[in-house]
Amino acid sequence: MRLPIPGATRVAVLGAGSWGTTFAKILADGGADVALWARRAELAREIAESKRNSDYLPGINLPRTLWASHIIEEVLDGAEYVFLSVPSQSLRGNLRDFGSIMPRQATIVSLMKGVEKGTRSRMSEVILEELGVSPDRIAVASGPNLALEIAREQPTAAVVASSSLDTATRVAMLVSNPYFRAFVNTDVIGTEFGGVLKNLIAVAIGIVDGVGYGENTKAAIITRGLVEMTDFSVAYGAKPETLSGLAGLGDLIATCESSLSRNNTAGRLLGQGYSFSDVIKQMNQTAEGLSSVAPILELAQAKGVVMPIVSQVAEVLAGTMNPRDIAPHLTTDSDVPQGE
Amino acid sequence: MRLPIPGATRVAVLGAGSWGTTFAKILADGGADVALWARRAELAREIAESKRNSDYLPGINLPRTLWASHIIEEVLDGAEYVFLSVPSQSLRGNLRDFGSIMPRQATIVSLMKGVEKGTRSRMSEVILEELGVSPDRIAVASGPNLALEIAREQPTAAVVASSSLDTATRVAMLVSNPYFRAFVNTDVIGTEFGGVLKNLIAVAIGIVDGVGYGENTKAAIITRGLVEMTDFSVAYGAKPETLSGLAGLGDLIATCESSLSRNNTAGRLLGQGYSFSDVIKQMNQTAEGLSSVAPILELAQAKGVVMPIVSQVAEVLAGTMNPRDIAPHLTTDSDVPQGE
Repeated sequence: MRLPIPGATRVAVLGAGSWGTTFAKILADGGADVALWARRAELAREIAESKRNSDYLPGINLPRTLWASHIIEEVLDGAEYVFLSVPSQSLRGNLRDFGSIMPRQATIVSLMKGVEKGTRSRMSEVILEELGVSPDRIAVASGPNLALEIAREQPTAAVVASSSLDTATRVAMLVSNPYFRAFVNTDVIGTEFGGVLKNLIAVAIGIVDGVGYGENTKAAIITRGLVEMTDFSVAYGAKPETLSGLAGLGDLIATCESSLSRNNTAGRLLGQGYSFSDVIKQMNQTAEGLSSVAPILELAQAKGVVMPIVSQVAEVLAGTMNPRDIAPHLTTDSDVPQGE
Repeated sequence: MRLPIPGATRVAVLGAGSWGTTFAKILADGGADVALWARRAELAREIAESKRNSDYLPGINLPRTLWASHIIEEVLDGAEYVFLSVPSQSLRGNLRDFGSIMPRQATIVSLMKGVEKGTRSRMSEVILEELGVSPDRIAVASGPNLALEIAREQPTAAVVASSSLDTATRVAMLVSNPYFRAFVNTDVIGTEFGGVLKNLIAVAIGIVDGVGYGENTKAAIITRGLVEMTDFSVAYGAKPETLSGLAGLGDLIATCESSLSRNNTAGRLLGQGYSFSDVIKQMNQTAEGLSSVAPILELAQAKGVVMPIVSQVAEVLAGTMNPRDIAPHLTTDSDVPQGE
């Protein structure tokens, strides 16, 4: 039974993985009246009754006011804001299923980091196409946001972007609480691509980790990787300062330094000499970074953007480059490279 | 006995600490004829005869061609390049002692990262003042360069800057070898300040580490710290792209992620609740970052540059701020911060 919280903003969060559940906690700790949708009835029941999500956030106590259900109609009922945290490749199908019962005036917020295979669309583009809402009712949230640290209430900063500054500001106020603080911008493209591209650089970092290289090499790859991320995003209309901010550099550093990151782990296995198919077999979940390599390189090529690090990751995945050779961007063909 | 290497460029490296010795190895591995000056006769003898520096680089075999002496005249004799790696607060005194015997046409390269107390001069400014040479014969080297990793021949990139692109290029070619690659620029100011300022941000990272915060907080501090580093350096004439490159962001990341960094360690002790004077007592060597805080804040104030993170480090050092509160830059006075 959902007990409404008088005066509180009514919010739905779709997707009860670690990030969706953490975000539901962020919102509830900020005072919102939050309903969380879990696909599986037993998970929804555990969250609603025991205030735990032992599959994805073991040991974390969820807020008493957080409610959950596996019945989408109950979760969406009366929602003023809908936060989406479903797998990026399932988003379009989910929106086709739920679209007709989505509350008319709700603001839609994407928590997802990925591009759709085939269409190569960003998540906000999929939302726009499937729901047909005005872009100023769509926002995206990103930043250096390792879920487990936030679930433990460690101080964290994030970015909320929308083409409407008013929408971004409303969402940022809704999600801010004593341990989570959101900054706003209007650069949806840069904010979304930052979250996609950092996974590819994290795979490269994992590879050099697996090979056994140290912090000098990794710092150089992060530095040059940010240049690739910025060049790519700017070619697609992003502002460079978004990539220098929390949704670009910040997210990149947090992901590259997290030993829990699936992208890091996948890279590390590759660096240790496992083949791409071995890595896929060895990991239960696929790493978002691995599946983004091909679509991102296609998009880069379409705009003439050069991405040496991402290209080298692709070669390691294809088995045409030895992981030990992934640092040749440190050298160049010319004896003395210009600039840095 | 020094045995000259026919056809090789003759190089002197002054200072046989871990960085000076590592750089002597870089140069010798690149084919130069290198003489290393150590203040202590027994250390010079160990390097020259045993090809080891067991105090500063335990376990590292130095190149067979590397020669060392504690007699400065022998080391400087015929040197076409002189690399300086002495303590930053001793540089001026050293140059007054050695200046008269410095080979007339030698190119002088600073490997040091610091500002002189009192004068607040950068190292290249001290060299310029004391030797009275033309600025186009002075270069500085910097980057994500943890000495021990380079000594282990892990792939590393660096930056060589000089007001003369020709000088920077000559030095970059001299120092490049199979595991060490130098990029060039003409922004001496940005390259030097990057190396100084990153130590201050590393102290802040150490503090949040000591408090127990995680990667989200650290990524946000690195991201915002780079903004402070850039604002400061640009106010003093640097190019912003230098700070986005290896000598800024790259060095910052490597230093913040290195558990060996003295600046990190000092910060971590502060974060755990030790006072400034306890930390000084507990550490054998002072951390460069601690002594740079006051001069850098004075220089910032002179140009009206706001440095919230560095200011907070100063408050923790002064005992007027609890280390647990060092993340308030994640929040602001206004409810919803603009930009990111």
